[in-house]
Amino acid sequence: MATRAIGFIDSGVGGLTVVKEALKQLPNEKIMYLGDTARCPYGPRPVEQVVQFTWEMTNFLVKKNIKMLVIACNTATAVALDEIKAALDIPVVGVILPGSRASLKQTKNNRIGMIGTIGTVNSHSYLNAIKNKSPQTEVIELACPKFVPLVESKSYQTSLAKKVVAETLQPLINQKIDTLILGCTHYPLLRPIVQNVIGDNVTLVDSGAETISDVSMLLDYFDIQAPVSNETPQHEFYTTASTKMFEEIAMDWLPLSDIHVQKISLGEEKRN
Amino acid sequence: MATRAIGFIDSGVGGLTVVKEALKQLPNEKIMYLGDTARCPYGPRPVEQVVQFTWEMTNFLVKKNIKMLVIACNTATAVALDEIKAALDIPVVGVILPGSRASLKQTKNNRIGMIGTIGTVNSHSYLNAIKNKSPQTEVIELACPKFVPLVESKSYQTSLAKKVVAETLQPLINQKIDTLILGCTHYPLLRPIVQNVIGDNVTLVDSGAETISDVSMLLDYFDIQAPVSNETPQHEFYTTASTKMFEEIAMDWLPLSDIHVQKISLGEEKRN
Repeated sequence: MATRAIGFIDSGVGGLTVVKEALKQLPNEKIMYLGDTARCPYGPRPVEQVVQFTWEMTNFLVKKNIKMLVIACNTATAVALDEIKAALDIPVVGVILPGSRASLKQTKNNRIGMIGTIGTVNSHSYLNAIKNKSPQTEVIELACPKFVPLVESKSYQTSLAKKVVAETLQPLINQKIDTLILGCTHYPLLRPIVQNVIGDNVTLVDSGAETISDVSMLLDYFDIQAPVSNETPQHEFYTTASTKMFEEIAMDWLPLSDIHVQKISLGEEKRN
Repeated sequence: MATRAIGFIDSGVGGLTVVKEALKQLPNEKIMYLGDTARCPYGPRPVEQVVQFTWEMTNFLVKKNIKMLVIACNTATAVALDEIKAALDIPVVGVILPGSRASLKQTKNNRIGMIGTIGTVNSHSYLNAIKNKSPQTEVIELACPKFVPLVESKSYQTSLAKKVVAETLQPLINQKIDTLILGCTHYPLLRPIVQNVIGDNVTLVDSGAETISDVSMLLDYFDIQAPVSNETPQHEFYTTASTKMFEEIAMDWLPLSDIHVQKISLGEEKRN
């Protein structure tokens, strides 16, 4: 059990920001990553479709015998976590509760901003999770549908990105938030620009990175952490679209000296 | 399920330092606490006896229908956690893995000190947990058998305490540790004195407080967090010795305006 991989799924490359934190905190763990880039973005899609796509990704990795599944995508977590967690016999972790908990720990004035995809914002998952723990906290949600395409096209350091982020975040300026949840795992790639627009007095919470603390805790709790080894784990990366762009973004973002990405197909498999 | 209490057990008043963090992070949760003060300290006792006493405390709270058990005692965690966790059908959390993880997150030079009871030090539980995750990290362990009696007698702010702590911690001076684990839940009551002796450049890790992050995470994971309510939970405190000293320390340490402690007996119950 312990030597099996931890699976990560995302609509595209966003979940790599979660993997980055895993490589840092859990260097012994083997990672299997699947990004459904061919059907990205998930954000604007109907709930039922996102649930189906998430199951297709899940089934692909479950067949590869993962020991734990991280739904490293906020849109998918919002609509499919409960169902998948109930159905699988391995631990399943989403990114919304860790991000909610971290934002509550961070805020001093109980005014939290949350940016995410249309799907995540419409689910009100962050708002509900936060209000469940702290009813007096205000959560200001904002959908940023233009952010994911910027990241997937590797345009996250361009002047276009700066312009789009500045325009999109306008409704959050003067809202007196002291904490902003990056409620989409693609957004940490835009972090410097977001921080610049929103101001240094607002703390950004990276929900994906926070999730790795939960993963680490659950590895301990279920006693399935990988044994210490002198060999570096051979991570596996899969995408449903071109491997080239995926590799470029992964090499830019992760502290790995090389990376092998395989293209696979989803959609033939039937939902459980 | 959700409205049931979280149980905390300790050899005496030490676990109140864990409860303090629970009151802060989890204000909706009802707490049931049992301190076995009549048989404190556990540290110098044989393993078999500590296991038995821990089962007696566990059974007392399980009969009160707790939804989760926190073994808020390092000595008991070291020898009884695995057995109790395997036997109960509610989540069971100890204080050693959270403290180990937090210390690894904290250290920059990979030299960690660990102070605890004779029992905890002899178990090498912290050393093993840390080496399991990071073999290159050095862990310098030191038993401090005089600390628990200082706390239980409410002498933790006296000049005697200062003298004892300064003498006891001498072997750790000049060991170049940058992190020191308070590997006994009684020790946070001595924290200012310990910090003064060990120096400001050493970060103290409160294993008990770290444990509450795990508790919070598991409440989410198993979806058993208490619902938000306008009523303050009615916490219950039990001790096997005089309620007077327990109340004085609890009122000194916890942000509660009043506290009701009941004296109970253990030992008649048979081990599972």
